[in-house]
Amino acid sequence: MRSSNITEPSPLAPFAVSLGDPAGIGPEIVAKSWVMRDARGLPPFFAVGDVAALRAVWLGPIAMISAPEEAAAAFGSALPCLQVGQAGEIVPGAPSVEGARTAFESLEASVGLARSGSAAGIVTAPVGKEQLYGVGFTHPGQTEFVAERCGVSPHNAVMMLAGPSLKVVPVTIHIPLSEVPMALTIDLIRARAITTVKGLQRNFGIPRPRLAVAGLNPHAGEGGALGREEIDIIRPAVESLREEGYDIVGPLAADGMFHARAREAYDAALCMYHDQALIPIKTLNFDDGVNITLGLPIIRTSPDHGTAFGIAGTDSANPGAMIAALRMAADAARARAAYVG
Amino acid sequence: MRSSNITEPSPLAPFAVSLGDPAGIGPEIVAKSWVMRDARGLPPFFAVGDVAALRAVWLGPIAMISAPEEAAAAFGSALPCLQVGQAGEIVPGAPSVEGARTAFESLEASVGLARSGSAAGIVTAPVGKEQLYGVGFTHPGQTEFVAERCGVSPHNAVMMLAGPSLKVVPVTIHIPLSEVPMALTIDLIRARAITTVKGLQRNFGIPRPRLAVAGLNPHAGEGGALGREEIDIIRPAVESLREEGYDIVGPLAADGMFHARAREAYDAALCMYHDQALIPIKTLNFDDGVNITLGLPIIRTSPDHGTAFGIAGTDSANPGAMIAALRMAADAARARAAYVG
Repeated sequence: MRSSNITEPSPLAPFAVSLGDPAGIGPEIVAKSWVMRDARGLPPFFAVGDVAALRAVWLGPIAMISAPEEAAAAFGSALPCLQVGQAGEIVPGAPSVEGARTAFESLEASVGLARSGSAAGIVTAPVGKEQLYGVGFTHPGQTEFVAERCGVSPHNAVMMLAGPSLKVVPVTIHIPLSEVPMALTIDLIRARAITTVKGLQRNFGIPRPRLAVAGLNPHAGEGGALGREEIDIIRPAVESLREEGYDIVGPLAADGMFHARAREAYDAALCMYHDQALIPIKTLNFDDGVNITLGLPIIRTSPDHGTAFGIAGTDSANPGAMIAALRMAADAARARAAYVG
Repeated sequence: MRSSNITEPSPLAPFAVSLGDPAGIGPEIVAKSWVMRDARGLPPFFAVGDVAALRAVWLGPIAMISAPEEAAAAFGSALPCLQVGQAGEIVPGAPSVEGARTAFESLEASVGLARSGSAAGIVTAPVGKEQLYGVGFTHPGQTEFVAERCGVSPHNAVMMLAGPSLKVVPVTIHIPLSEVPMALTIDLIRARAITTVKGLQRNFGIPRPRLAVAGLNPHAGEGGALGREEIDIIRPAVESLREEGYDIVGPLAADGMFHARAREAYDAALCMYHDQALIPIKTLNFDDGVNITLGLPIIRTSPDHGTAFGIAGTDSANPGAMIAALRMAADAARARAAYVG
């Protein structure tokens, strides 16, 4: 689908939106996003999953499609849906084994459609990890699964959380805090930083991205008095990258990096662990944070929230982050079409 | 100075403001606060330290006093200063041994004045810790020193960071991140929580404080899959407190605790380590965060920033946090005067 004339990208293929766990808020926020498609300038997309999950929470128009190519024509008057899986009886808020299996299958199908070029990229609604583990899903999360199906090592697929105020990348993610210090290496930090820089160029159209790198310890270790990881690992990684021409600073005291003035100095913050990255972005952009995976051949975004089983089926889910994820996917497609590198 | 009639507190004694490191921004922000005393409704206060530190950065009126009792009369027309220490030649931005010694002595003197009742409390400008360590200061920070001089175990003196949007208390503070998991105990979390609740009652006038307790690991450990500290330590501490009647919830996923809606549900957040507490408060309230020590017989507040040697002497320091610290100290004095407990 990529035009050979990079100055005039071809019309986008539709985006594949996996519905996630049928008992979570995924189906509801996908349907609500479709309703707001014009007001929010959303790209054409189609749902991938069991249409019964949409029907369980939404009475609006649905157009069953048998191939992504049919989505664009249907999109203006109905939410296109490509049936994948059979979740059985769907009770919003009550996850089931069949539902988890359907979530798994719709994720898998979506990746395949994007890999083949039938979809412009994928936007993934939230899954229940505990439920997925119960049906043979062996990856820590959707990101790692998508990476593997794209032939990319998880080492090189990078989770970025991006909102209107801030972009963050955690170097380590879903591991106990006690394991973080041992997991940090110069190579890992370098790999995450390089993927982040390329990702900002390719998906966000930032020609020369500026990175800020957080320290691990209070006050970034205070010269070694409060920990040595900055001296032994983080600083060498940052300095080697700077010598190679990257626009990168750090390690910085993490608590001073995220206020409004500090954020002006960088395009993305590289953080050492999950909460160091997620606390500031969720504090600032709780309702419209997007998870975008960098380092993949395909575009993949996701709303930065979970299944919210507790409110599923109550019509109270906020589609803001799903809408932001759809918009970011479309922006990334345009940036990629214009990217020369 | 405490009135025997608690419904009608006596006029406040002045607050003692230690100037901190003479080469830092302390003297400048103290002088700037005095200039704004009426506009910002500040309580009477006097500087404690080497007047030369004020003179090095400020040309306004100074009234040398020999005792706190003289401060109130002078405060309207000049910044009262109680000479303590001799910092020698003062070069803003260039800390010296003599300067560190003076910072140490003015902190010590201020605590003594508050202990004796001559001062209504203390507000401490920032010190350079490296410099202080060089002159025989053996405490991790000013908080621990003040606690010791008040006869309070550091275990029971609690650092709270408080701003207009959020109040946070870190359970562990200035230790390497790798030591945090081992430092957490049920007893420590309980002690911090209880001191926090009492401190909110006594200094903020909140009759029945609501506490939210953060988990240590990503997603608060996700049921043990991402770490066991929540199950083994944090949850038992929280549940034992709840059984004793405290209004306390947790462990919560730390990244979801600090957005605007989440903050409405609690008066203070108890965090497991430095950056977990400091990242959200500095992200939200960078220019007006206050450090208040709970669990002391005296009132002690401090602006939540460092010496900023890099901008000292350039007249560019923002007095916002010092002003907020002075106002919070005055509010605490009023709350304590009205407190029945």
